[in-house]
Amino acid sequence: MRFFSDNAAPAHPKVLEAIAAANRLDTAYDGDEWSARLDGAFSDLFGTEVRAFWVTTGTAANCLALAALCPPYRAILCHRDAHIEVDEAGAPGFFTGGAKLILLDGEGAKLTPDAIDEACGLIRNDVHQVQPAAISITNATEYGLVYRAAEVAAIGELAKRRGLALHMDGARIANALVSSGESLADLTWRAGVDALSFGFVKNGGLNAEALILFRTDLADEIAVRRKRAGHLLSKGRYLAAQILAMLDGDLWLDNARAANAAAQKLAQAAPGRLVYPVEANELFLKVTDEEAKRLRQAGFDFYEWGPGQIRLVTSWDQEGAALDRLAQAIAGL
Amino acid sequence: MRFFSDNAAPAHPKVLEAIAAANRLDTAYDGDEWSARLDGAFSDLFGTEVRAFWVTTGTAANCLALAALCPPYRAILCHRDAHIEVDEAGAPGFFTGGAKLILLDGEGAKLTPDAIDEACGLIRNDVHQVQPAAISITNATEYGLVYRAAEVAAIGELAKRRGLALHMDGARIANALVSSGESLADLTWRAGVDALSFGFVKNGGLNAEALILFRTDLADEIAVRRKRAGHLLSKGRYLAAQILAMLDGDLWLDNARAANAAAQKLAQAAPGRLVYPVEANELFLKVTDEEAKRLRQAGFDFYEWGPGQIRLVTSWDQEGAALDRLAQAIAGL
Amino acid sequence: MRFFSDNAAPAHPKVLEAIAAANRLDTAYDGDEWSARLDGAFSDLFGTEVRAFWVTTGTAANCLALAALCPPYRAILCHRDAHIEVDEAGAPGFFTGGAKLILLDGEGAKLTPDAIDEACGLIRNDVHQVQPAAISITNATEYGLVYRAAEVAAIGELAKRRGLALHMDGARIANALVSSGESLADLTWRAGVDALSFGFVKNGGLNAEALILFRTDLADEIAVRRKRAGHLLSKGRYLAAQILAMLDGDLWLDNARAANAAAQKLAQAAPGRLVYPVEANELFLKVTDEEAKRLRQAGFDFYEWGPGQIRLVTSWDQEGAALDRLAQAIAGL
Amino acid sequence: MRFFSDNAAPAHPKVLEAIAAANRLDTAYDGDEWSARLDGAFSDLFGTEVRAFWVTTGTAANCLALAALCPPYRAILCHRDAHIEVDEAGAPGFFTGGAKLILLDGEGAKLTPDAIDEACGLIRNDVHQVQPAAISITNATEYGLVYRAAEVAAIGELAKRRGLALHMDGARIANALVSSGESLADLTWRAGVDALSFGFVKNGGLNAEALILFRTDLADEIAVRRKRAGHLLSKGRYLAAQILAMLDGDLWLDNARAANAAAQKLAQAAPGRLVYPVEANELFLKVTDEEAKRLRQAGFDFYEWGPGQIRLVTSWDQEGAALDRLAQAIAGL
Repeated sequence: MRFFSDNAAPAHPKVLEAIAAANRLDTAYDGDEWSARLDGAFSDLFGTEVRAFWVTTGTAANCLALAALCPPYRAILCHRDAHIEVDEAGAPGFFTGGAKLILLDGEGAKLTPDAIDEACGLIRNDVHQVQPAAISITNATEYGLVYRAAEVAAIGELAKRRGLALHMDGARIANALVSSGESLADLTWRAGVDALSFGFVKNGGLNAEALILFRTDLADEIAVRRKRAGHLLSKGRYLAAQILAMLDGDLWLDNARAANAAAQKLAQAAPGRLVYPVEANELFLKVTDEEAKRLRQAGFDFYEWGPGQIRLVTSWDQEGAALDRLAQAIAGL
Repeated sequence: MRFFSDNAAPAHPKVLEAIAAANRLDTAYDGDEWSARLDGAFSDLFGTEVRAFWVTTGTAANCLALAALCPPYRAILCHRDAHIEVDEAGAPGFFTGGAKLILLDGEGAKLTPDAIDEACGLIRNDVHQVQPAAISITNATEYGLVYRAAEVAAIGELAKRRGLALHMDGARIANALVSSGESLADLTWRAGVDALSFGFVKNGGLNAEALILFRTDLADEIAVRRKRAGHLLSKGRYLAAQILAMLDGDLWLDNARAANAAAQKLAQAAPGRLVYPVEANELFLKVTDEEAKRLRQAGFDFYEWGPGQIRLVTSWDQEGAALDRLAQAIAGL
Repeated sequence: MRFFSDNAAPAHPKVLEAIAAANRLDTAYDGDEWSARLDGAFSDLFGTEVRAFWVTTGTAANCLALAALCPPYRAILCHRDAHIEVDEAGAPGFFTGGAKLILLDGEGAKLTPDAIDEACGLIRNDVHQVQPAAISITNATEYGLVYRAAEVAAIGELAKRRGLALHMDGARIANALVSSGESLADLTWRAGVDALSFGFVKNGGLNAEALILFRTDLADEIAVRRKRAGHLLSKGRYLAAQILAMLDGDLWLDNARAANAAAQKLAQAAPGRLVYPVEANELFLKVTDEEAKRLRQAGFDFYEWGPGQIRLVTSWDQEGAALDRLAQAIAGL
Repeated sequence: MRFFSDNAAPAHPKVLEAIAAANRLDTAYDGDEWSARLDGAFSDLFGTEVRAFWVTTGTAANCLALAALCPPYRAILCHRDAHIEVDEAGAPGFFTGGAKLILLDGEGAKLTPDAIDEACGLIRNDVHQVQPAAISITNATEYGLVYRAAEVAAIGELAKRRGLALHMDGARIANALVSSGESLADLTWRAGVDALSFGFVKNGGLNAEALILFRTDLADEIAVRRKRAGHLLSKGRYLAAQILAMLDGDLWLDNARAANAAAQKLAQAAPGRLVYPVEANELFLKVTDEEAKRLRQAGFDFYEWGPGQIRLVTSWDQEGAALDRLAQAIAGL
């Protein structure tokens, strides 16, 4: 039973159905009827006018956004453990043409306005030092914590004051949203977010993610950058259809709720072992090597996460029985 | 009835079936069982050891290959009408970090060894002029012509003599192969090709293309570059499964034969109007504006291609009835 | 006697004196008193407010300007024989992060508004084709022709109409200016030029060139890009002092007049051999291989320039006696 | 009296004489007789075959070297306070095409093999994390400490073991060398250094630095990259002549000895205030704001360096009288 990653889970059947339903002749690239509906669908969802672009990976969404928000000769402030720093093979450097990531600390991969402000204050305002242009935060964070709307808004205000753009890596935005109980608008554009990488693949999608621009003036540049990076698929309708299926009837929210609930079930089995509060669908547990071995022998797969820690990730399709067995196994360590 | 592009056609049902069959939990990225089979499947197909990478676009396949074959400070020789020059939004410049395309002439978008050799001869061998590092050819070409194995081999020999790498954009390699009646090995690695963009999407695929490395020493670099460009999908099994389905039972060859046959049927209706011989699945016809209008009024869609010319592209799924009607309409102009 | 290039000539003694005079302690980089005077000196010279940056090469001046005027995903229109295309090792691709040069034809390396307009008209306005962002012209051209103010203005108007920026490579702007007899303002900013590479090194300078921004809003970006490209020298005063010495007492104009006069003297010796009218300090002559050999045997050095042609370049310090001998030798062929 | 930086000092008179002596017609770029002598002069100096390139800034020397030693998709390990990280406006990102700097800690900006090894050990060897390709150290460091030959050799051995290249930023290599009393060969290539930025400008030069390649196989690439970055000056003889003048009669060593001696004189006046041992020509002193103010009122200029610290840099031309006054002023605080 794999708890490696929500990327390992299958796609939701409705996503497959949507792909099959889109399997007819239509205009290439994003000239098809499904792609044409994305801007409207997301504008409705966010309650404001947005521009939406399908891409196939979170890395593409993140780095296209960052390239539009940060010129090659400036910097992006992010957490030391941010996905863009740790797990994207230097993609931000590639897409931006050499912009720098300035790495900040913060509990559970969360940034605070104070940490950002302090880092900015340390940069001499001259041509020798790289000046910041953007902030990137991840919600839910790489350690499964959730920024509340007020926390994002505080960062958004600082960004505005400092003249910085604000990007949100929402690979698990659905998990964050249902966890917070707040509104999508409050968590994003009303809090000052300029661009959002809206994740679907970890949440039951197949291979479609969305890049949402609240700064709609960037849309033309993003369209060109997407093409130039080889991310304008020639049969885009199969991506757009996936996304529409996820939005339809709030499937994306249902999936996130299921994954979060599964994580809560496990969390309750191991209150003393939690490295971080469990707010989304990731758990980081303190276990000894011996304990980890026993869990593996019992048939559970997961990643080690530094010495004495393991990471468990739950998915939209987590079976109750397997969960119960894992919860029991953890409790019984 | 659309004859815009083979990108507009739907995916073959077997491709959809393969996606559905892959819809179960497996390791993320390319750690799954389908991805693991690609190297072997293509090595068998080519009769030599190759490394195979799935990507989602021909642009990604082309430009990842070119970035590995040409350093930022050198140049790629290609035809003036090559897809990498004309239709990829400058992606070669982006992926290579600023390498230059040197544009050559040649009938029907075909390069000849003489044209390449002459162009190389005009470049002073000093630090002021950009030195070439690679050649890129497209088979079938952007005008539907097919390089025979001997033609590729002649370019391959020149490449070797000049110390240049050789890339083949095979967005329509299947159409070229069945048209030539030659072997895949003779058309590619035996002729000196170092890397091949192996197209499936225009040939009944959904969103999976393959980058084939005959120079297997480049595989590690390509793996990193793919990730860095945001092209390592987190659920890669859905791409690998598509490709395996296309190879299975030679579906890719059947599809290409169908598309080529459809093109031949149209070609026979308009012998005097052909701008180029029809060797694959594209036709370029001389028609007046008035004639083009009549075809459109009869329900046929296609692109204008410069003054007095139109382009028709046939697909794997072309219905006989529509073809007959179009052939008749053309004949009756 | 060398007629290879005006780069081979020594620096004017006053330039060396200025360097010596600047040889005292001052603030590093461009914080010194000489650098501080550049903006004012050039604003006076041009009769409008400009921002001026010293750099050490024309390539740096050209490509810093182009990087600020053209994003990585767009294109610069220039002549096929432009220095930025032919002699800068792909520097525009490096500085811009992969922007494309679109190469146009034109007699004597001169662009016309019609040629530019036609080229723009051929670019489909979609994300597949690279859209132009800037035009770059060279005055005097690589073949020694001079754009008059009205010619530049016609290009400037087209640029404005098409939304394109206009850069002038003025490696030999002094020679062009004294040849045209027009005003520096009319030749540049009044004609719509946004940025000018103002050459001094070919005109008696030692190693200082200037980048002049008529679009002063680009100054901050250029300052950072200059530093980032390793072109912010730590003892900038020695560059600024050279430039001020060249401007002082119109030394730059005197030098250009001397070089142009020398070219005229040679031109008059070979009226039937001129490939282009001699308008600045370069001559392109039709000579047979045998004739070229005789000139070399007589002690004259120069470049071949394609079959049956040679290039002669005159400098600010051309000695009358050597000129007379060369003129005689040419006349006597 | 300025103690801001050794960049503020004038050039040595012999350097100016050498420029004047080179002021005659010669071949452009680096085809002149002075440039032709550099490889030999430095090969003699190092006691091994090297290739030497003049450039005008340390940033250019550093980043050209790093671009040749590290592909765009890998990383350079350096100290958190390294000049390439802190003071070059992101130039490494620009020259390498997006490579990453991995920042390490270490007393006085010095790296240790252990710190490097530990950092490497934390990087998962997969395509998601950026793999290191090179190490860059600065000698003397940004805090005026000197790596001894054995220390460099220990890093060199680790580099070899880990398959990493080793670059040394020797902006103050002369000061380090005379301080260590060791041999130039032991401090560099015998210790495993692949490329050295050999500084002259801070040491009495005017505007010429040298990039020394012990890996002579990189010379062709560096030559092209130098041109492409706009760093191939058209009258290179004035740079080569400066460097030769510095080497002539060991002027570079005399200058460094003078600067180091001046620093020692000041250090002796303030034994209790030194943040780091004074090993080259930089001093970092603990002073209160009030004390700093008094020094400034007495006519001494210097940089604050974080709270409660100031930096003093001595130069080759430091006058004894001014030094005495400053030493006295510090002692009297």
